[in-house]
Amino acid sequence: MQVAERIQAMIEKEVMKTGDKLPSVRSLSKEHGISMSTVFQAYYHLESKGFIEPRPKSGYYVRFSPRRLPEMPKPCRPVKKASEVNVSDMITEVFNHLSPDDVLRFNVAVPPEVLLPAAKLSKSLIQAMRSLPAGGVNYESLQGNHLLRRQIARMNMHWGVTTFTEDDIVTTTGCMDALTLCLSATTQPGDVIALESPAYSGTFQLAESLGLKVLEVPTNPVTGVDLEYLDKAIPKFKIKACVFVTNFSNPLGACMPDKHKRELVKLVNKYDIPLIEDDIYADLYFGKTRPSSCKQYDRHGNVLLCNSFSKSLAPGYRVGWTMPGKYKDKVLRLKLNHTVSSATLPQAAIAHFLENGRYEHHLRNLRKMLHTQCLRYQQAIADYFPEDTCVTRPQGGYVLWLELNKSINTFELYDLAMKKKVSFAPGRIFSLQDRYTNCLRISHSNPWSKQVDDGLKTIGKLAHQLL
Amino acid sequence: MQVAERIQAMIEKEVMKTGDKLPSVRSLSKEHGISMSTVFQAYYHLESKGFIEPRPKSGYYVRFSPRRLPEMPKPCRPVKKASEVNVSDMITEVFNHLSPDDVLRFNVAVPPEVLLPAAKLSKSLIQAMRSLPAGGVNYESLQGNHLLRRQIARMNMHWGVTTFTEDDIVTTTGCMDALTLCLSATTQPGDVIALESPAYSGTFQLAESLGLKVLEVPTNPVTGVDLEYLDKAIPKFKIKACVFVTNFSNPLGACMPDKHKRELVKLVNKYDIPLIEDDIYADLYFGKTRPSSCKQYDRHGNVLLCNSFSKSLAPGYRVGWTMPGKYKDKVLRLKLNHTVSSATLPQAAIAHFLENGRYEHHLRNLRKMLHTQCLRYQQAIADYFPEDTCVTRPQGGYVLWLELNKSINTFELYDLAMKKKVSFAPGRIFSLQDRYTNCLRISHSNPWSKQVDDGLKTIGKLAHQLL
Repeated sequence: MQVAERIQAMIEKEVMKTGDKLPSVRSLSKEHGISMSTVFQAYYHLESKGFIEPRPKSGYYVRFSPRRLPEMPKPCRPVKKASEVNVSDMITEVFNHLSPDDVLRFNVAVPPEVLLPAAKLSKSLIQAMRSLPAGGVNYESLQGNHLLRRQIARMNMHWGVTTFTEDDIVTTTGCMDALTLCLSATTQPGDVIALESPAYSGTFQLAESLGLKVLEVPTNPVTGVDLEYLDKAIPKFKIKACVFVTNFSNPLGACMPDKHKRELVKLVNKYDIPLIEDDIYADLYFGKTRPSSCKQYDRHGNVLLCNSFSKSLAPGYRVGWTMPGKYKDKVLRLKLNHTVSSATLPQAAIAHFLENGRYEHHLRNLRKMLHTQCLRYQQAIADYFPEDTCVTRPQGGYVLWLELNKSINTFELYDLAMKKKVSFAPGRIFSLQDRYTNCLRISHSNPWSKQVDDGLKTIGKLAHQLL
Repeated sequence: MQVAERIQAMIEKEVMKTGDKLPSVRSLSKEHGISMSTVFQAYYHLESKGFIEPRPKSGYYVRFSPRRLPEMPKPCRPVKKASEVNVSDMITEVFNHLSPDDVLRFNVAVPPEVLLPAAKLSKSLIQAMRSLPAGGVNYESLQGNHLLRRQIARMNMHWGVTTFTEDDIVTTTGCMDALTLCLSATTQPGDVIALESPAYSGTFQLAESLGLKVLEVPTNPVTGVDLEYLDKAIPKFKIKACVFVTNFSNPLGACMPDKHKRELVKLVNKYDIPLIEDDIYADLYFGKTRPSSCKQYDRHGNVLLCNSFSKSLAPGYRVGWTMPGKYKDKVLRLKLNHTVSSATLPQAAIAHFLENGRYEHHLRNLRKMLHTQCLRYQQAIADYFPEDTCVTRPQGGYVLWLELNKSINTFELYDLAMKKKVSFAPGRIFSLQDRYTNCLRISHSNPWSKQVDDGLKTIGKLAHQLL
């Protein structure tokens, strides 16, 4: 691994450039005094990450170079006013089909089942069923499975959220349910809320169904929302709540630096408005440690942390949770009114899975896979898409955000791609403004394969044609 | 069974009166030319239903007579205007504890686990897990498990809802979720909706969380809402939707006659407003056949039928469904926004349970138990409560509604009873008006036992003290 890391660093710093030949296995083995099989392993590892490629009867060559990666997209300009939601039809069109079919789906940011520990989770479910009274047919308590909440509190403690306990947690039917409860608890119809721009289309639809208006905040693809802008916007637009994905935002992939997170918490405290922090991608970091969450810096109960196991473990289990701060009682009451309680067995199964240390183990593998896939997809986009394409370089999560030439309408591109049974999410659905019409989001959740390669090639080719 | 039915009829028509001695087993056996064990079975059956009782060394005596049952409560008077919801604190107080504890809970209308087929359902869950791809970790389709919807459509066809198919059904996370989606799809904050009076407190809270006002419609404890009144009230109060429990309403236990149901559908068609029909208790009929639902008479898509398996099979599974008529697309969109999809495994497990004919079999037993319990509870109330107590005679469901002497405040009674670890639902929480303060709801879901008998005796005694 040390050898691999050293070579990777050389490639990233462009000490070794694309097309350069790597030292032969034999010479590297001699040079470092390590076995040839160790060198092979290092090369296989780099190959799986897309950094190098073997050429028959010739050896390994550098394949990837950051220079060859397209430019990053630029943050958007501020808007003039908060908007009512108007993109529902487009969103419904794109996400109409949740169940698998014959379309290659770059449109959804969900883990494909091959990356999920289905068999082990099934075992946990059976264990949970055996240990629950009457096999789990009874209502779970309103606040949620007690063992699960304890495990979540432990996990959070591990990440640095040390001042909260299981009693601060409420389980939900997935993260969208957590967001729905938190938004309902903190806003009234007609209120203005702040979202990133571009922002997850599902949040726009949620805002619409709750009768809320949305102010889109300019967002940097690396550092997240523009806090200076936000500071002025909160009083100016009478913003009543912020809903931000602070880690690996969707679709930009931005990850707020710790300093920004602290500042953001100060800001919401200054105006005494809630920050609903959607943290579903944070577990899927590519770096060495999990990024922090704003909740860590919350001393006044203004941060409502929302999360779930849908992006990392079992979408179909619909198990999410929230730490709703000072809004806990209101969230509990709404939960009682809308669903009584969350399903008993899925909560208990995930509690069992966590208790046995299986989650951390699974996450390690999943993160490695996703990182490799992300690099592979980026490389393919650089290879197949028009030269002036910009693409993000997320450090976690499931998605890449692409900015194509201004002349290209990605809804047109979408229609063409769908005819070839390839799907992606057109940029327009991530804003209420008439923007991002030349952008698109591609999920790199599908493991690399010839089909994926062909799919990306197809979109790239169509983009070339539209130029 | 024929012998038992004949004797029951004689008791009900008061041909045989309370305290009358029944013919000896030997003489009845000779008279009808049937075996003595058959007669014993008939007597056991009547005893289990509370109609007759054995007296040692003497024989069987008539125990129950309708004459001895208290009077029925009267319908309430109409209100002057629609109200904002104001009883949330009281409701939260009463239903704060969903999980079992040491209180004897006459307050909740849920099946106790002893009446549920937990082991068989667990088997169905394991079967479902094995047959689903990746053990059910994936998202279910937005509309819901296809096999489950087909089974529900079949069940409905069996009941007489013949013109609808699986494509008309959307699964939900329990019935409250179905009601939430249907109400959200058909109303705007500020709208007025019509509910029965008294009505289920959870519906008030739901209305509150959606910013709706409520008009309470006078309701007859036998035939349900007053349709003549409703016909005038809809235009007068600008009612935008009706939410009625047409079969075994909660808390009154009223069951609308077919004629009324047809009229109600005509009425909502006339004003072109939606009728959200909460049908969760219909499966729990005590008579010979399942009562009809308004949905059967719906030809214009104005009836949104809501139901679940929480009252009859597995509350903890959180599996409900709706037939939202012409609002289906809107309901689907809201479901996508709020919870993405419902949990995969619980739906598949119940589909499997239904497919194998286990549900009908289970329901037959459950209905018999509930009928017997209902009669037993009524008898005990007649025995222990003050003489001027009125009580309903529901033909299905889980609850009895009691009207005590006007001088008694049932919230006071509630506080006293809770000190003795007995709980019930005070009448006041079933209205937004200052009414039903001398009423209470008692759930007869707990199987008859000495503890139950003592619990009812306790409440009765306390009521006597408060007189």
